[in-house]
Amino acid sequence: MRILGIDPGLATMGWGVVDTDGRKNTLVQAGAVITPPDMPMPERLHKIFVDVSGLLCTYSPDEVVFEELFFAKNVTTALNVGAARGCALCACSEFGKPMYEYTPMQIKQAVTGYGKADKKQVQLMVKMMLNLPDIIKPDDAADAVAAALTHAASGRMREQFRMK
Amino acid sequence: MRILGIDPGLATMGWGVVDTDGRKNTLVQAGAVITPPDMPMPERLHKIFVDVSGLLCTYSPDEVVFEELFFAKNVTTALNVGAARGCALCACSEFGKPMYEYTPMQIKQAVTGYGKADKKQVQLMVKMMLNLPDIIKPDDAADAVAAALTHAASGRMREQFRMK
Repeated sequence: MRILGIDPGLATMGWGVVDTDGRKNTLVQAGAVITPPDMPMPERLHKIFVDVSGLLCTYSPDEVVFEELFFAKNVTTALNVGAARGCALCACSEFGKPMYEYTPMQIKQAVTGYGKADKKQVQLMVKMMLNLPDIIKPDDAADAVAAALTHAASGRMREQFRMK
Repeated sequence: MRILGIDPGLATMGWGVVDTDGRKNTLVQAGAVITPPDMPMPERLHKIFVDVSGLLCTYSPDEVVFEELFFAKNVTTALNVGAARGCALCACSEFGKPMYEYTPMQIKQAVTGYGKADKKQVQLMVKMMLNLPDIIKPDDAADAVAAALTHAASGRMREQFRMK
């Protein structure tokens, strides 16, 4: 099974593609969709929609996993980050992909065994689990891969994380 | 010139199409995109994207006007309403339409002459300005038409409301 993990954001949306047979996981590719702050908002959102559609075309994942947005500094930030996430969800829905969502704590717990692990610990565990020479950069891409690995490990419990 | 006004929302997104020659305004059509709360969120967002795209195809507006989201009860509401607005912006960007945004107060001021007018006063003025037999229903559609009328009246000041 191929999983696309997404860490939603407006300026930087991390993504990572992982193949899993239920035991062994392989990194296919990871990266980030970047939208510059001087681009008009509608164009930034459209770029996210187009680029996420491009990932779905290029990698044909079986399922898509989002890191849940729990926190936003204020209502204005939430409106903008929510818009970016919304355009990514919209693209995945257009491709009819099953979508799942995990909280940051669930991802940290799954990857490091500790729900309050810091960013560095998560990055190192992702590197080890995928047998990579280096940690994944940027951070948002590493977070997206961690979300995909969480889904790969969730097995029979998976359906409870299906997005409503 | 043909203007599409949009009052963004997740459950109900009001819209209204107005033709203007700078003095006389004519209502072409108004309505609302409704997404039921029991539909999964990605499908709701996709429906908004598809339905707004459909309005752009059907009515070919020259410009699109959004009522600005100022207020959201809390961060979770802001994430969801922001996502709905984001998918509408994304659809308009795909069609390359110039987009503008007015605050609720600017719209009330333009339509009734009073920035703190209530919903009913706005609805009655919209009815009078367009010479309609009844007020427009639902409320969100009337708000969207009011946004379009605000843009029709904004004349040379228009560029300052262009969305960044």
